[in-house]
Amino acid sequence: MLPRGRPRALGAAALLLLLFLIGFFLFGGDLDYGRPRPRGAAALDGDLPAGYGGHNSSDCDPPRPRPRPPKCELLQVAIVCAGHNSSRDIITLVKSMLFYRKNPLHLHLVTDAVARNILETLFHTWMVPAVWPQVSWIPNKHYSGLYGLMKLVLPGVLPPDLVRVIVLDTDVTFASNIAELWALFAYFSDKQVIGLVENQSDWYFGNLWRNHRPWPALGRGFNTGVILLRLDRLRQAGWEQMWKMTATRELLTLPATSLADQDIFNAVIKEHPWLVQPLPCVWNVQLSDHTLAERCYSEASDLKVIHWNSPKKLRVKNKHVESFRNLYLTFLEYDGNLLRRELFGCPCPLPPGAKQLQRALARLDEEDACFEFRQQQLTVHRVHITFLPHKPPPSQPHDVTLVAQLSMDRLQMLEALCRHWPGPMSLALYLTDAEAQQFLRFVETSAVLSARQDVAYHVVYREGPFYPINQLRNVALAQALTPYVFLSDIDFLPAYSLYDYLRASIKQLELDGGRKAALVVPAFETLHYRFSFPTSKAELLALLDAGSLHTFRYHEWPRGHAPTDYAHWREAQEPYRVQWAADYEPYVVVPRDCPRYDSRFVGFGWNKVAHIMELDAQEYELLVLPEAFIIHLPHAPSLDISRFRSSPTYRDCLQALKDEFHQDLSRSYGAAALKYLTALQQPRGPV
Amino acid sequence: MLPRGRPRALGAAALLLLLFLIGFFLFGGDLDYGRPRPRGAAALDGDLPAGYGGHNSSDCDPPRPRPRPPKCELLQVAIVCAGHNSSRDIITLVKSMLFYRKNPLHLHLVTDAVARNILETLFHTWMVPAVWPQVSWIPNKHYSGLYGLMKLVLPGVLPPDLVRVIVLDTDVTFASNIAELWALFAYFSDKQVIGLVENQSDWYFGNLWRNHRPWPALGRGFNTGVILLRLDRLRQAGWEQMWKMTATRELLTLPATSLADQDIFNAVIKEHPWLVQPLPCVWNVQLSDHTLAERCYSEASDLKVIHWNSPKKLRVKNKHVESFRNLYLTFLEYDGNLLRRELFGCPCPLPPGAKQLQRALARLDEEDACFEFRQQQLTVHRVHITFLPHKPPPSQPHDVTLVAQLSMDRLQMLEALCRHWPGPMSLALYLTDAEAQQFLRFVETSAVLSARQDVAYHVVYREGPFYPINQLRNVALAQALTPYVFLSDIDFLPAYSLYDYLRASIKQLELDGGRKAALVVPAFETLHYRFSFPTSKAELLALLDAGSLHTFRYHEWPRGHAPTDYAHWREAQEPYRVQWAADYEPYVVVPRDCPRYDSRFVGFGWNKVAHIMELDAQEYELLVLPEAFIIHLPHAPSLDISRFRSSPTYRDCLQALKDEFHQDLSRSYGAAALKYLTALQQPRGPV
Repeated sequence: MLPRGRPRALGAAALLLLLFLIGFFLFGGDLDYGRPRPRGAAALDGDLPAGYGGHNSSDCDPPRPRPRPPKCELLQVAIVCAGHNSSRDIITLVKSMLFYRKNPLHLHLVTDAVARNILETLFHTWMVPAVWPQVSWIPNKHYSGLYGLMKLVLPGVLPPDLVRVIVLDTDVTFASNIAELWALFAYFSDKQVIGLVENQSDWYFGNLWRNHRPWPALGRGFNTGVILLRLDRLRQAGWEQMWKMTATRELLTLPATSLADQDIFNAVIKEHPWLVQPLPCVWNVQLSDHTLAERCYSEASDLKVIHWNSPKKLRVKNKHVESFRNLYLTFLEYDGNLLRRELFGCPCPLPPGAKQLQRALARLDEEDACFEFRQQQLTVHRVHITFLPHKPPPSQPHDVTLVAQLSMDRLQMLEALCRHWPGPMSLALYLTDAEAQQFLRFVETSAVLSARQDVAYHVVYREGPFYPINQLRNVALAQALTPYVFLSDIDFLPAYSLYDYLRASIKQLELDGGRKAALVVPAFETLHYRFSFPTSKAELLALLDAGSLHTFRYHEWPRGHAPTDYAHWREAQEPYRVQWAADYEPYVVVPRDCPRYDSRFVGFGWNKVAHIMELDAQEYELLVLPEAFIIHLPHAPSLDISRFRSSPTYRDCLQALKDEFHQDLSRSYGAAALKYLTALQQPRGPV
Repeated sequence: MLPRGRPRALGAAALLLLLFLIGFFLFGGDLDYGRPRPRGAAALDGDLPAGYGGHNSSDCDPPRPRPRPPKCELLQVAIVCAGHNSSRDIITLVKSMLFYRKNPLHLHLVTDAVARNILETLFHTWMVPAVWPQVSWIPNKHYSGLYGLMKLVLPGVLPPDLVRVIVLDTDVTFASNIAELWALFAYFSDKQVIGLVENQSDWYFGNLWRNHRPWPALGRGFNTGVILLRLDRLRQAGWEQMWKMTATRELLTLPATSLADQDIFNAVIKEHPWLVQPLPCVWNVQLSDHTLAERCYSEASDLKVIHWNSPKKLRVKNKHVESFRNLYLTFLEYDGNLLRRELFGCPCPLPPGAKQLQRALARLDEEDACFEFRQQQLTVHRVHITFLPHKPPPSQPHDVTLVAQLSMDRLQMLEALCRHWPGPMSLALYLTDAEAQQFLRFVETSAVLSARQDVAYHVVYREGPFYPINQLRNVALAQALTPYVFLSDIDFLPAYSLYDYLRASIKQLELDGGRKAALVVPAFETLHYRFSFPTSKAELLALLDAGSLHTFRYHEWPRGHAPTDYAHWREAQEPYRVQWAADYEPYVVVPRDCPRYDSRFVGFGWNKVAHIMELDAQEYELLVLPEAFIIHLPHAPSLDISRFRSSPTYRDCLQALKDEFHQDLSRSYGAAALKYLTALQQPRGPV
């Protein structure tokens, strides 16, 4: 998969060392020679029909009748994936594969530490029936940067009882059922161990430019974007020694050049041509700039797999690229939730967690007026953490991460937020798959956003009618890496000095010494679009007096922030303690291990109130910071809020949820929670 | 396709009359007995393998080897479609079919007047390669309400040289390549004329409830959601007389009951069982409440077509419905633009217009800094007119339609707009396919919006980086049905009295007498979210004096509305004439046949200015109405506007477009256009 056009300058000597290290760590005497023959292999092995793997007219279609794997047979697939960008690419590949598949799949994902975190969370929350993802992290640092060679060592890395596997690059897209590819194992002769499609370029013929000296290959060579591996036979045949010997020898005579597994595979095959089973060209239609693939796809009746093997990927020039791009975009933007389809007629043990979930969903009463609320609470959203490259800043004892959540309609807040908050952020974005791509483009075209590496974006995929606000907050909170978090909302801009001031306050108040406190950041709002942000508390107070600013929700819901005591704050020079009161919902700074938000509150209303109540129940001091402030900018009411605010059912359900929350609080905190129930008896205002 | 659960109370006598009328209009002696045998039919006809069409274990898969239609063979498909809702349903069906197809398709769409308008526009703008849509309107009013019988008369309605056709209900979804279905024609014996899948319910066994007396059927009967028709043989066999005789006879003894083509097909087959070729169950998996379909799909390795044949459609209860719904939603939300894929290796004449478009696109210079602008101008967007049911009000001589355009982020304006404007509206919505479904749900759940039948919503599907503002305006304008249009923008709310006042003014000013005038509606704005809308001009002036309201864009771009002369307007009692000046862009009322907007202006800037200039060039009087006003509500800046306002390229390109517009204006209007060029020399302000 390593792009052919970007030579990697690795010294031959360093490489040799690495090759041996790989051998040492992965193979070290563990080869297993005694595996049983795979079921059916003997019966199906044999000569391939004439012209089976070629490029000529009518050769592209595999011969009929084709063997098909039996219904419900488990197929094995391995993919090597490292870093943030490949972790996005692999999802499009997997979506295309799942869309067409009819068989249970075992996915072997060989990753680095970054991809491991991302993919474990993703597959855990995706919960696709009849897919078993297994993320194998290769921790040895010698491999970093060597993921291009990882496919060579798969026979050692994959489970020793695994007999056959399909190996895929992250830049391929399926246009057909992978079981048809799996069925091609049946054509392997007794000696064949690797199935590959011929290269669809003249690369290995050499002389593409002056001094172009490619590695040796059989004819046009083979492309390794799609590989069928007989792991049992490879292990038996001493594959490790075979490829290392070849690579070592070639490296002595060839200059260290664009090194990739593909070169080594080809060099080995050149030496031992009986190892390879050529596959029909449609199983790896290679879309590079000067591709010869048209010979293949214009004759074939069906494309099976396309391979974006140009370094330019989708920007490759090619007269049919638009059509191929449409296939790719189909899956890029495809709602991955729709792939949670059962395989009818196959015994499909449910993915972890899915069984409890199914039971909980089954217990819900569809006639309950709050059914949709309860359903939404139980929804497990697919989560893609660190959707974009992210470099967390070095760990500092008083550092604080801004935590917030948003959907597409608040994207335009991000640049301003970055200008106001120079510190780390952890943001959960509630998006569809298609919106996630728009978001990606938005960040790429923004100079402000692409300059920031300390903002982690976590995509939570949309599902259900309500905005799962507290689930989103919990995702962002769980991914914060600093010891403290500032729990904000996306419509607020912090004072320019807030980040520095918060760190200084945390230090000054000795929160790291075990003092249990939530620092309150007073909230204000402007109703004007055009607005000059105050650069100091004095300026803020002047705007407040001039009527250009108000304390937050002063007109509609003063109880939400009244305990902050804005009158006191005006004069305050030092942090001061305030008491919890009913409906209090300030924006606070707390340690990262603070209580999570209660995810039963979806949509609008009471989502922060419940969290502050829990902080109070756990005896966090509430300390208002005298120089801290944030200002809420105006925005059109969201569709959701206007719909639900006007609905009596919505209000009734919210009341029911509140009551249940109080009951749980009493159970957890006993008599101490009594004050919350008393507060509940008071008359209340709007949601 | 008629839902089985909703009996239609048609008297037997009326029905008999209709049956004869159908015969009279459609068949009248035109039967053609001399058609040649279809190519290959003789060779392929023969006995079907045992168990081919049944329900038993392992019978669902068609036998292998299966015949496949040759690459590039043209397949014929007929679909009956009437009304707004079916016109939406059919699109999901067509998308699923196009997604999997590998062959050119000829679509025969048999429609009523409503569906004809919608589908002609849709397919004309969709421009899918290798699809030939042919919309046949059946104008005879005797058929209205009888579309459920239309499938019976297809042999007479479809082109007489058409030999074979696949007939589909609008509520089926493909999960496979339609060519595999077409290939089943090869199994027809010489006598067989109709291919059908067995019914997957016990309906035709009767006794489902007291007095349940179904029409006669062979065993379980057949479902007509998917039909293969040998049209040539049907015509030859005297199909018309056959089904009419059967239907007439059955109607004499059976009570007029839930009448549908399916009953008549089944009664004919009961009488002439040799006519039917049973098809494998996977080609019509019927998802009704008490379906027996599971027997089929849990054994089969592949589902081919699913059929939502319950009146409840997707809300049907069924233990696997979630998985089927996911397949349906896949195509419901699928970006139809992605289906503009070529069929590689097939000669594909381009759809009408596509050739010129391709040439124009090829002439563009990719290195041109304004390339994306020019590409966007040439983009042909898919257009779905009257996406929702729409009943235009009766034609009135001075009536006026509000014309505007919007995207998803302005949906929340619609309810307020409906409250302020009780008259007809024509709105263009710029949406993705998935957003169109959200929009549909939004309207369905809004009491205000669903009560309105005089608001026509036209969906223009998103494509390209710029908001095609003037193309959208032109779509909405072209669909306005009243003699006058009020060209507004979605962020404005009209005075409550504006609709009545405009009609009165049109009458009073005798615009229908040929006076060429554009009535100017003065525009104001509020910067506050919470805002009490003035109920009179006096109230508006008071708010203006209090500083709560401003004239529109007074602070940023006063030139845009200065010629309206707000000072004069304050005192005016009568309409007054104003002169055009550079950059004037008032909101106006004009006759429906006014000049179209210049679609070269995409994104933001100059889109209205150019239109007003053209009105002036065509010597429209500009008359300001003294009691008319609209008020702009605040909104967060859209992503587009903030991105492009800051881009120097954007400004340069806009300048280039303006210059080209002026050149075109000079060409069209000669010396009279000189004043616009002179105005151009003046210093200018922001975009």
